[in-house]
Amino acid sequence: MSEYVSKSTLQRLPFYLDALQTKLARGEKYASSSQLAKELNLNEVQVRKDLASASRSGGKPKVGYEIQELISDIKLFLGCHRIDKAVLVGVGSLGTALLGYKGFKDYGLEIIKAFDKNESIIGNKIKGIEISELSSIKDTIKENNVRIGIITVPAQYAQEVADTLIDAGVKAIWNFAPTRITVPEEILIQNENMASSLAVLSKHLQNKIENEK
Amino acid sequence: MSEYVSKSTLQRLPFYLDALQTKLARGEKYASSSQLAKELNLNEVQVRKDLASASRSGGKPKVGYEIQELISDIKLFLGCHRIDKAVLVGVGSLGTALLGYKGFKDYGLEIIKAFDKNESIIGNKIKGIEISELSSIKDTIKENNVRIGIITVPAQYAQEVADTLIDAGVKAIWNFAPTRITVPEEILIQNENMASSLAVLSKHLQNKIENEK
Repeated sequence: MSEYVSKSTLQRLPFYLDALQTKLARGEKYASSSQLAKELNLNEVQVRKDLASASRSGGKPKVGYEIQELISDIKLFLGCHRIDKAVLVGVGSLGTALLGYKGFKDYGLEIIKAFDKNESIIGNKIKGIEISELSSIKDTIKENNVRIGIITVPAQYAQEVADTLIDAGVKAIWNFAPTRITVPEEILIQNENMASSLAVLSKHLQNKIENEK
Repeated sequence: MSEYVSKSTLQRLPFYLDALQTKLARGEKYASSSQLAKELNLNEVQVRKDLASASRSGGKPKVGYEIQELISDIKLFLGCHRIDKAVLVGVGSLGTALLGYKGFKDYGLEIIKAFDKNESIIGNKIKGIEISELSSIKDTIKENNVRIGIITVPAQYAQEVADTLIDAGVKAIWNFAPTRITVPEEILIQNENMASSLAVLSKHLQNKIENEK
């Protein structure tokens, strides 16, 4: 396994996992890199390279990868068995959508509490996760050794929330607010930008239309 | 400008645009690749390569890129001036969040209508976008030459909705349902998978913690 794994590879691993689990559920035992490449719309060399970064067990000639083994390797590599505790700040529509997302637990993320400043929703639960007052966020983070802060507040509050989270001890920020936030060097930050995905889709659509002319 | 631009570069271009627009608003005229690299947490070679794929106007020695010109080039490259019409299916919390997202218009995406099967919300408007009955979706797509379908329904309905959208004539599907959907080869598909982003963040956090031991 290589020491350095690119972000693109990391982003693709959940898709392999998803495809492999579907195969396993159908009773299949082996998957070839060519099958996976076709299903996931990637090239075969890429598939072999990606899988080699997460698993030592290479595919066998003619049979391919042993699915069960490959799933375990990818999960171990991604740290799915290790639970990272997170808090979410900003229970608007996006925050609510994230609280309801079932897939996080499979990847070892547990959102233990949500926070908002809207008093009318304090005390409510969404999918079993309680919404609390912002004023209690530091205690929650410290007492529970929370490592990840998820930000789903409007853009103008994002930096302030990030500062609070970092001050309370989180090590990583997952920012969904449509603005860039600044964090100290030792803090991990992942900015989600819907426009990024849209840019890819839109450009590919444009190329396609131009090629058809 | 190169003919082939990688997905990663396309995904980064909106972040450059965002950074450049912030600089322009502050009254700055030039941006160097080293500044941009630092702000966006990328390496300088990558920045120069990314920008070269979208713009012919290279940075000038000692001064850098002319911001206004670079913004225009990136926008032109991404097709921001060209409007793609879209419909959104599934007005739950994620659908509502996307309808409320202001950034899409900057990238040429116009969501003209939303659809849901929940009768109690039919006729409502979210951020000015009307929610209509699913039964009218084909007519809307055909009459308005809608090119993009955004899917925010629960996983079990996603394939059915995709089939309907494609049958009605959309050319691209942006799928937020946590499942893979199958589309004919000529249709573009972009699957969003929150777990992908989480995998990156979570792995980096794990590496960080192990390095600190």
